[in-house]
Amino acid sequence: MGKVAVIMGSTSDMPVMQEAIDILKGFDIEVEVDIVSAHRTPEKLFEFSKTAHEKGIQVIIAGAGGAAHLPGMVASLSPLPVIGVPVKSRNSIDGWDSVLSILQMPGGVPVATVALDGAKNAGILAAQIIGSSDKCVLDKILVYKEGLKTKVIEGAKSLKNKKDR
Amino acid sequence: MGKVAVIMGSTSDMPVMQEAIDILKGFDIEVEVDIVSAHRTPEKLFEFSKTAHEKGIQVIIAGAGGAAHLPGMVASLSPLPVIGVPVKSRNSIDGWDSVLSILQMPGGVPVATVALDGAKNAGILAAQIIGSSDKCVLDKILVYKEGLKTKVIEGAKSLKNKKDR
Amino acid sequence: MGKVAVIMGSTSDMPVMQEAIDILKGFDIEVEVDIVSAHRTPEKLFEFSKTAHEKGIQVIIAGAGGAAHLPGMVASLSPLPVIGVPVKSRNSIDGWDSVLSILQMPGGVPVATVALDGAKNAGILAAQIIGSSDKCVLDKILVYKEGLKTKVIEGAKSLKNKKDR
Amino acid sequence: MGKVAVIMGSTSDMPVMQEAIDILKGFDIEVEVDIVSAHRTPEKLFEFSKTAHEKGIQVIIAGAGGAAHLPGMVASLSPLPVIGVPVKSRNSIDGWDSVLSILQMPGGVPVATVALDGAKNAGILAAQIIGSSDKCVLDKILVYKEGLKTKVIEGAKSLKNKKDR
Amino acid sequence: MGKVAVIMGSTSDMPVMQEAIDILKGFDIEVEVDIVSAHRTPEKLFEFSKTAHEKGIQVIIAGAGGAAHLPGMVASLSPLPVIGVPVKSRNSIDGWDSVLSILQMPGGVPVATVALDGAKNAGILAAQIIGSSDKCVLDKILVYKEGLKTKVIEGAKSLKNKKDR
Amino acid sequence: MGKVAVIMGSTSDMPVMQEAIDILKGFDIEVEVDIVSAHRTPEKLFEFSKTAHEKGIQVIIAGAGGAAHLPGMVASLSPLPVIGVPVKSRNSIDGWDSVLSILQMPGGVPVATVALDGAKNAGILAAQIIGSSDKCVLDKILVYKEGLKTKVIEGAKSLKNKKDR
Amino acid sequence: MGKVAVIMGSTSDMPVMQEAIDILKGFDIEVEVDIVSAHRTPEKLFEFSKTAHEKGIQVIIAGAGGAAHLPGMVASLSPLPVIGVPVKSRNSIDGWDSVLSILQMPGGVPVATVALDGAKNAGILAAQIIGSSDKCVLDKILVYKEGLKTKVIEGAKSLKNKKDR
Amino acid sequence: MGKVAVIMGSTSDMPVMQEAIDILKGFDIEVEVDIVSAHRTPEKLFEFSKTAHEKGIQVIIAGAGGAAHLPGMVASLSPLPVIGVPVKSRNSIDGWDSVLSILQMPGGVPVATVALDGAKNAGILAAQIIGSSDKCVLDKILVYKEGLKTKVIEGAKSLKNKKDR
Repeated sequence: MGKVAVIMGSTSDMPVMQEAIDILKGFDIEVEVDIVSAHRTPEKLFEFSKTAHEKGIQVIIAGAGGAAHLPGMVASLSPLPVIGVPVKSRNSIDGWDSVLSILQMPGGVPVATVALDGAKNAGILAAQIIGSSDKCVLDKILVYKEGLKTKVIEGAKSLKNKKDR
Repeated sequence: MGKVAVIMGSTSDMPVMQEAIDILKGFDIEVEVDIVSAHRTPEKLFEFSKTAHEKGIQVIIAGAGGAAHLPGMVASLSPLPVIGVPVKSRNSIDGWDSVLSILQMPGGVPVATVALDGAKNAGILAAQIIGSSDKCVLDKILVYKEGLKTKVIEGAKSLKNKKDR
Repeated sequence: MGKVAVIMGSTSDMPVMQEAIDILKGFDIEVEVDIVSAHRTPEKLFEFSKTAHEKGIQVIIAGAGGAAHLPGMVASLSPLPVIGVPVKSRNSIDGWDSVLSILQMPGGVPVATVALDGAKNAGILAAQIIGSSDKCVLDKILVYKEGLKTKVIEGAKSLKNKKDR
Repeated sequence: MGKVAVIMGSTSDMPVMQEAIDILKGFDIEVEVDIVSAHRTPEKLFEFSKTAHEKGIQVIIAGAGGAAHLPGMVASLSPLPVIGVPVKSRNSIDGWDSVLSILQMPGGVPVATVALDGAKNAGILAAQIIGSSDKCVLDKILVYKEGLKTKVIEGAKSLKNKKDR
Repeated sequence: MGKVAVIMGSTSDMPVMQEAIDILKGFDIEVEVDIVSAHRTPEKLFEFSKTAHEKGIQVIIAGAGGAAHLPGMVASLSPLPVIGVPVKSRNSIDGWDSVLSILQMPGGVPVATVALDGAKNAGILAAQIIGSSDKCVLDKILVYKEGLKTKVIEGAKSLKNKKDR
Repeated sequence: MGKVAVIMGSTSDMPVMQEAIDILKGFDIEVEVDIVSAHRTPEKLFEFSKTAHEKGIQVIIAGAGGAAHLPGMVASLSPLPVIGVPVKSRNSIDGWDSVLSILQMPGGVPVATVALDGAKNAGILAAQIIGSSDKCVLDKILVYKEGLKTKVIEGAKSLKNKKDR
Repeated sequence: MGKVAVIMGSTSDMPVMQEAIDILKGFDIEVEVDIVSAHRTPEKLFEFSKTAHEKGIQVIIAGAGGAAHLPGMVASLSPLPVIGVPVKSRNSIDGWDSVLSILQMPGGVPVATVALDGAKNAGILAAQIIGSSDKCVLDKILVYKEGLKTKVIEGAKSLKNKKDR
Repeated sequence: MGKVAVIMGSTSDMPVMQEAIDILKGFDIEVEVDIVSAHRTPEKLFEFSKTAHEKGIQVIIAGAGGAAHLPGMVASLSPLPVIGVPVKSRNSIDGWDSVLSILQMPGGVPVATVALDGAKNAGILAAQIIGSSDKCVLDKILVYKEGLKTKVIEGAKSLKNKKDR
């Protein structure tokens, strides 16, 4: 089964990015976590991005805030699919800066962007990417989606019960 | 080798979405194109999304404009990775409507969003997803990335030559 | 007298949506409440929307946050007037995402959008829709509007009294 | 069968608002058209709004641009459901001004807002409001929705044919 | 000496609008305060606006939040200069709604708009308008501006002293 | 009768600002026009602003684009009411820059801001300011407002005639 | 070694601007701090800006909030490089006002703008400007950049250790 | 005298960036121009940025559009002051993407951002940076600023003459 790298620009992004790690572990997918800053450790960024696909990594999740260059620079250097998580950092202009810095990549170098602080969805998307060629993971996703449904149905029921009582 | 479905809400999205089809064909990846409107053909949307993964499709690219619900609804119904292309339609509020309608998906149901009118990058991303488990496609992406580099280097050279003459 | 369905994507929307329920009960209009998630229970969404008009429902109020697809998808499937309430959810980009996802529907499939977190107004609008063909409800709305006026006049008076003392 | 009033702030809004008139005529719904400016003919606004419900009008559609006060002021004065159409006028700040001036009404006075320049949807919504208590109009809407579907299906077919040839 | 009317849509706007009243009293200008809601007391709005200039009022300050129609509607009905104060109300979309609803008035009907929650400046502006034809008030404004300067100079001094100690 | 100064940052603002001049001349108000750039002729800005009130000027209209500092700096230096016209210049970010640079003045130094490119309304507002203490100008404004009304009524009539024919 | 002036519109900007002072002192660069308000002490602004380059100052850092005119007006009057720090003040519209008022300067008068509340980066940029012609300061910046790197590397290590334990 | 490097992500940025080159040549400052793409030639970006300060370059001007990572990545790798020019590219969301991607850099790595498409100001700013330690360039800037003034004064005169004739 595949391996996913979850990297982020700073340890302060960890509370947001942990959700990606948790969801991937729930799918029994191996996760490699690291701090890689585009602006403060550019050499590590290079080293990491150029070699990730040679080390068994299938998908890279990169989270960053403000003028978030990490996901785009990793995508520039790696042939793997890169999922970008815009993190709403302190001093952010309402999150618009990280959203646009990650989303609006030029033609040739895509980043698969998810919602602001949407690390959980980044994890699911990584699993879906692995599942697109791995029947076993695909089945787990089908089960996961059933779980989402059940939870809503139960919420609706408890609402009805509350009213009926 | 995998298969990618490229769907869009209306034939008027074709000029934008054609770029995704072209890039995929350039990677020798099989493409299936269809018009599926979340708002006007919801039954077709259901039918398509529920069965896509059973018909050999590995990735779905969905383009739509305005209050763009197509990518998110497909992602709701299919276990496959869904790439959303926000299309800047007529009457759009500068593209913000389609960008936010596609990007800001709730926890549990991700859409891999690319830039406004970024169908070309959607195609590349789909190829990267397939490449994440298919060495042959991965190699083509490495070649493609070399091509991007060469083009910039040549642009720089011709700039220098112009100046020197 | 008519019946109004109030649905929402998640039980977490209930604090906002309760205002719609309260105002409708104040007008003695029958209300049916349910949790229907476009992204997590798409089959329930289909079932609900396709049959609502056959079960005596006259107006549907749908509240959702983020990339809010519920109101638009219900409007896609039902011939009834659908009122959309953009809910300012956690991780929302200041509410812009839900506002634009609900408001900017394509030609052919309208959603009657009210203000951000404007469930109270959604309830009044539903009553006005019923009142447009039901003299008795119309009269109640005229009385309600008088009440709004009285409250402002009294506020102005108490301001004057405070100053005079 | 009901009657709908379509009013607008200026004759320059006519090209946009004509779509509402056309769609309503297509549903055989009687339409009354007038120019009523909140800012330049406030007395006419008062007179019109206070009496509309006594003259057989069931729904009011009001279109305006910029700091668009017409829909909200009509809603203030009439007990009928008011549909607001934000018009992207000259000097508008990308349409945001008319959208927010119409959408963000205070609690107590709703306006059913449709998309920027969305007069066509305003017409359909008015028909749906009448249809909510008029089986004959409801059936026409069901037929209209079938027509939307057919058009998309045909677009998809012609796309397939083009490719096959 | 002139008289200024300070009106607002709701008693909840009073904490913001009080600053306008205070500054005007500081200039010894007579102030008349009232609650006038464009949406809930449209008749009072008419009555007030049509007669203000006949009752010795020279300037009208109007504060309102959300889809703020009060300043514009007063300006529609009165020949006097109207100063609009956008109030950042609960449920506001970051204040953009009230700012644009007041600022973007159509040609023919100006509102002198000040900053979000800028009631203090509305008071000063009203004084300046009276001062434009009243030498005595103009002199007070010159004194007021000197006071602003003195305060900054003193702030700068205390900063220097702190450092020197 | 009073005198109004109309200044602007550059001759390129003239096409927009001419509307202010025209409307003031229509009210028989004396106008003084000049080019004063906050950024390129700061000394002239100082000289002009410090002395305007001593030369019979009652109101200053200042138009500027981009990071528009002219209206605010004049307001800093002159005790007169200053009307700011945000001009949508080339390279502007949709006009937001000039709107916010003029509107969001700090407490103590107001600028009466009008709509984007709203020079016509700046002219009317200046006339209203003079009219607030000059019965003759006030009467002209009442006549002007009647003219606005007449034009709308005639537009409505021609619309009706067209339909009846 | 050079000297940098750090000025701000109000003592309330001090908590933000202190970061610029601290970083410069860390580089052993002389700092001169003052309160200069474009709107309340325009004469001091003139005096300061016209003479700064004659008093050994090499770079000016100016911080201001709202309609922030201080950096642009200093840039208008001084030949020195001016760094503008947009401060997110009370009543700001999410910081957009100060960002755009400082960034969007007209051709001819640049302001080197840094991020919202980015005083720390303003200090570093000032040091880099001095370092561009002063080998000793340049070396300190190279050391500073190494420090940034070390901190990230250590964060990454402690993350790994936590996991391994 | 110093040397300035002007780099950009693509030859398509040349029409905008040429203004920086022209202004620098006007100041007799040596300019080195190159195409360096953060996303397509990351190795060249590294090579260029790491060595620029060793090759006599004093200031780097970097222009890029969309998710513009070039200025920030150069700033990450070079100790020199980096001026960022947001370019309004095709498919840009009104320029907001490049503005925020360049401006909102994290603490530690500043980019001196100028206005959207503001390459001319980038050139002047680079000259001012050199001028901050080079009396001869400083004098040229003082002369340049006089020129700006003269042009406005002449514009004002020709306006007056036109009126007088």
